[in-house]
Amino acid sequence: MSIEKFQYSQAERDAIYRVIEERRDMRHFCGGTVEEKTLRKLLLAAHHGPSVGYMQPWRFIRITRPALRHSIHSLVNKEVLLTAEALGKRSDEFMQLKLEGILECAELLVVSLTPDRDQYILGRRTMPEMDLASTACAIQNLWLAARAEGLGMGWVSLFDPLELSNLLGMPDDCKPVGIFCLGPVNDFYDKPMLETNGWDNRRDLDTLVFENCWDSDKGNE
Amino acid sequence: MSIEKFQYSQAERDAIYRVIEERRDMRHFCGGTVEEKTLRKLLLAAHHGPSVGYMQPWRFIRITRPALRHSIHSLVNKEVLLTAEALGKRSDEFMQLKLEGILECAELLVVSLTPDRDQYILGRRTMPEMDLASTACAIQNLWLAARAEGLGMGWVSLFDPLELSNLLGMPDDCKPVGIFCLGPVNDFYDKPMLETNGWDNRRDLDTLVFENCWDSDKGNE
Repeated sequence: MSIEKFQYSQAERDAIYRVIEERRDMRHFCGGTVEEKTLRKLLLAAHHGPSVGYMQPWRFIRITRPALRHSIHSLVNKEVLLTAEALGKRSDEFMQLKLEGILECAELLVVSLTPDRDQYILGRRTMPEMDLASTACAIQNLWLAARAEGLGMGWVSLFDPLELSNLLGMPDDCKPVGIFCLGPVNDFYDKPMLETNGWDNRRDLDTLVFENCWDSDKGNE
Repeated sequence: MSIEKFQYSQAERDAIYRVIEERRDMRHFCGGTVEEKTLRKLLLAAHHGPSVGYMQPWRFIRITRPALRHSIHSLVNKEVLLTAEALGKRSDEFMQLKLEGILECAELLVVSLTPDRDQYILGRRTMPEMDLASTACAIQNLWLAARAEGLGMGWVSLFDPLELSNLLGMPDDCKPVGIFCLGPVNDFYDKPMLETNGWDNRRDLDTLVFENCWDSDKGNE
């Protein structure tokens, strides 16, 4: 039977489920470095992500200049304050959270979509945002591989994309999708940080799965 | 040193890199079934995806009615023809490709974003599309877990999202992100199908990685 033929060993499957469960969105880092060969393995893992029409829309900008890292940090801080304002009654609670580790992480990466995306039509005529979806899948590969290597990663989306784009000299039709903090950590969170801090809880899987049509009783919470 | 302390064993890391490399976007399926407990493990893997502000915006609609599967197939066929038209000189080549396995796969799933997304501001004030990015990461978890279980999966984005939304009775502000074919396969592709068929090639990683700023010589191909 074809399933057994292609199924990985129990130990391999355990490793894969383990990394899926233990991956965390990290905000606490402890400096250090990431070896060049490890960084390359992680980027290669990302580059094995799926992509709509095989467009491979992801580009990785490695930030090595300390002054540039500080500029990115300022840009994020600005958005943190604007978000706090927009959050209204939850703003105090929000400001207690650690939201990024840009100055403490070993490596800082910005991931962007390419400027030439309009020429890719396969799977995107009615769903142009599949370029972002593909890139997010690539990032998830990188995230899982990093966790297995013992490295933390955090995805920061608290920034104005146009300002970040300008800061890094990107063409107008690029689109940065995240700032990624990567590196050694003192500890991985047991649970998602936003759960530990009481921001929200993981929903019950049964409330997320419907049959044949949308179930408003479940779907709208 | 913290990296070694948190690093997975060599065998575990090998399994994780293996599944990242062997995952394929499948279009050929051979019927059969997916065990309920396996399907649940895959959905749980997805539900362990990262989500911006812990919003968990993903919902899974399992299609079990044969008539509904046929309606979804028709909707995709319609978009295939419109895409062929839009592709101009590559349309004949496109029509030679196998683009979906909706009628042959064991399980058909539609994944959608929830209608209540506007209330989530953390990490989304300037980057609202992070709901889709989170959901794509969740789907990548499912995809990797499926491959390890010996099951193929294919992401189909050839459809009009509003038509699919109407067909499944979704509220207006939901957003279907893909139709997913899942199940046993006779064989996994050695390489991405679009590479084997000459549609495109995997780019060299070095052309995708920049330092400190956009490199137009590389980035614009």
